[in-house]
Amino acid sequence: MKGVIYSINRNATIVDLSHQVPRHDIEAGAFVLCTSYRYFPVGTIHVAVVDPGVGTGRHILGLSAGGYYFLAPDNEILKYIFHQYDPEIVFQLNDQRYFLRPVSNTFHGRDIFAPLAAHLSNGVPLAKMGTIVNNYHRGTIPQCSINTNQITGTVIYIDRFGNLITNIPGECLRQQNFTIILGTLTIENLSNSYADVSAGQPLALIGSSNFLEIA
Amino acid sequence: MKGVIYSINRNATIVDLSHQVPRHDIEAGAFVLCTSYRYFPVGTIHVAVVDPGVGTGRHILGLSAGGYYFLAPDNEILKYIFHQYDPEIVFQLNDQRYFLRPVSNTFHGRDIFAPLAAHLSNGVPLAKMGTIVNNYHRGTIPQCSINTNQITGTVIYIDRFGNLITNIPGECLRQQNFTIILGTLTIENLSNSYADVSAGQPLALIGSSNFLEIA
Amino acid sequence: MKGVIYSINRNATIVDLSHQVPRHDIEAGAFVLCTSYRYFPVGTIHVAVVDPGVGTGRHILGLSAGGYYFLAPDNEILKYIFHQYDPEIVFQLNDQRYFLRPVSNTFHGRDIFAPLAAHLSNGVPLAKMGTIVNNYHRGTIPQCSINTNQITGTVIYIDRFGNLITNIPGECLRQQNFTIILGTLTIENLSNSYADVSAGQPLALIGSSNFLEIA
Repeated sequence: MKGVIYSINRNATIVDLSHQVPRHDIEAGAFVLCTSYRYFPVGTIHVAVVDPGVGTGRHILGLSAGGYYFLAPDNEILKYIFHQYDPEIVFQLNDQRYFLRPVSNTFHGRDIFAPLAAHLSNGVPLAKMGTIVNNYHRGTIPQCSINTNQITGTVIYIDRFGNLITNIPGECLRQQNFTIILGTLTIENLSNSYADVSAGQPLALIGSSNFLEIA
Repeated sequence: MKGVIYSINRNATIVDLSHQVPRHDIEAGAFVLCTSYRYFPVGTIHVAVVDPGVGTGRHILGLSAGGYYFLAPDNEILKYIFHQYDPEIVFQLNDQRYFLRPVSNTFHGRDIFAPLAAHLSNGVPLAKMGTIVNNYHRGTIPQCSINTNQITGTVIYIDRFGNLITNIPGECLRQQNFTIILGTLTIENLSNSYADVSAGQPLALIGSSNFLEIA
Repeated sequence: MKGVIYSINRNATIVDLSHQVPRHDIEAGAFVLCTSYRYFPVGTIHVAVVDPGVGTGRHILGLSAGGYYFLAPDNEILKYIFHQYDPEIVFQLNDQRYFLRPVSNTFHGRDIFAPLAAHLSNGVPLAKMGTIVNNYHRGTIPQCSINTNQITGTVIYIDRFGNLITNIPGECLRQQNFTIILGTLTIENLSNSYADVSAGQPLALIGSSNFLEIA
């Protein structure tokens, strides 16, 4: 993909966001993207190619949200972005003039996403590379349920260190007394850092994504 | 290697082609190079350091082919390049003025390849860094054999997802009826995409390198 | 981290020194840094974030040595640098104006190290980002002991290929007859390259870091 991008825009700056997303794991890709994209300069083009439907008729979406561009297959990998911004205009990018030819059936990252992103970085507008689409897949965000004396959430991502990241936001847990119950495991205190417990001990803290993590 | 390159050419653009080539696996390196190099801009310098003979007397080759530069040990890792282009002039790069000093016995990537590539990117011609060589190792390309009603090929690469990539070109298989026999496994149909079968099912398709793949 | 750096200095050149340092392994990080830093251009900013104490009160050090800048937690990861240069001025970087806000408890690489490095690359002096500190942790370098007829050293790093790298410098071993004893293993000869023995055979050589290696 990098060779293709540099062939179209020699001055591109390319960053691999993560090499940790398991193949075909859209949930993991959606989470990594949503916790990372906003640390990049405004105007950055985020290309999210977790794409088990490659080679089928699934659309390729292009949109602008929060000052960033996003290119991704229409498979809910952008669900957190749609949830945060509700973008007014979403394009399906289908103008083959901006694809590499011939297009393979198994590597659209190289043959479609990379050239689209490179042309976009060169100033070609999304409107020129596709048409407006309305019936794309927005996806649903797993919400935690908050009752009087109980918050129930879900593990939405396991990072490469084995930490379990839940969908319980840090705000819900500050300045309250509580017990964390995870299967048969009970953790009484929220820690401030990994160094608070001995190696091997379970630990709960508000992680760098501002969600409750179990380490 | 990157530090050395930037020390000589501060404005270099460096791309890691793959972190997936197993150590000392020249066949895998040759395949990854041959399926990737042409997606880069013309003038790109491809440095192929799969080099089990590092520290021995093996030569370091430098050549121009198809609009690209290639630097590699003389161990057949460029065999697909030689097969496709049959370059007229190949140099052995032996002018130690363009090496890092002292040269270690185990890390020529850092001490020889990186500085040679950086000087080349700065405009130093190959002819100045070495002498013409004729008796380098061209290697042989495993050919598939095509009979009236049977094509026999070889698995030449296993990618990081475990897909088996054969040396049977896609052209040979289009618009024909056939059965794929792989050991005790039989596949009747060529698929168009990974989504054509359920997870865990064997699948045959023409991959992004335009060869028959078994996934 | 890269997004944060580019947000502050769009023209930064960022290199990942290694993806091989195991999590929380300060010894390995110290070794990788010490064998790599000098291959980069003078003025390079080396950021060493192996940081098991993230979120505790440990300081963040910033210093200039040998023409390079180093940013690291105060956990001895710079011990080889301190040993080689004995820098006159070391700062603890504590001016929160140069941090990302809010600072998480678990990802100071993104929230503190990356913005500090980016501001430094933009020309902000270390003195402006912190205050001079004297009681930082210099660490100790494992020395090999040299007797009349025996040199005893320690394995200080195991690289990703499984090679054992000792702290016995190459200089100590040249032009002498010796036997290498490693547990129950005995190696009579020093090899010049990996190709000197058959695959699977043990081998001793002076590696690219100029230390005795057992492969």
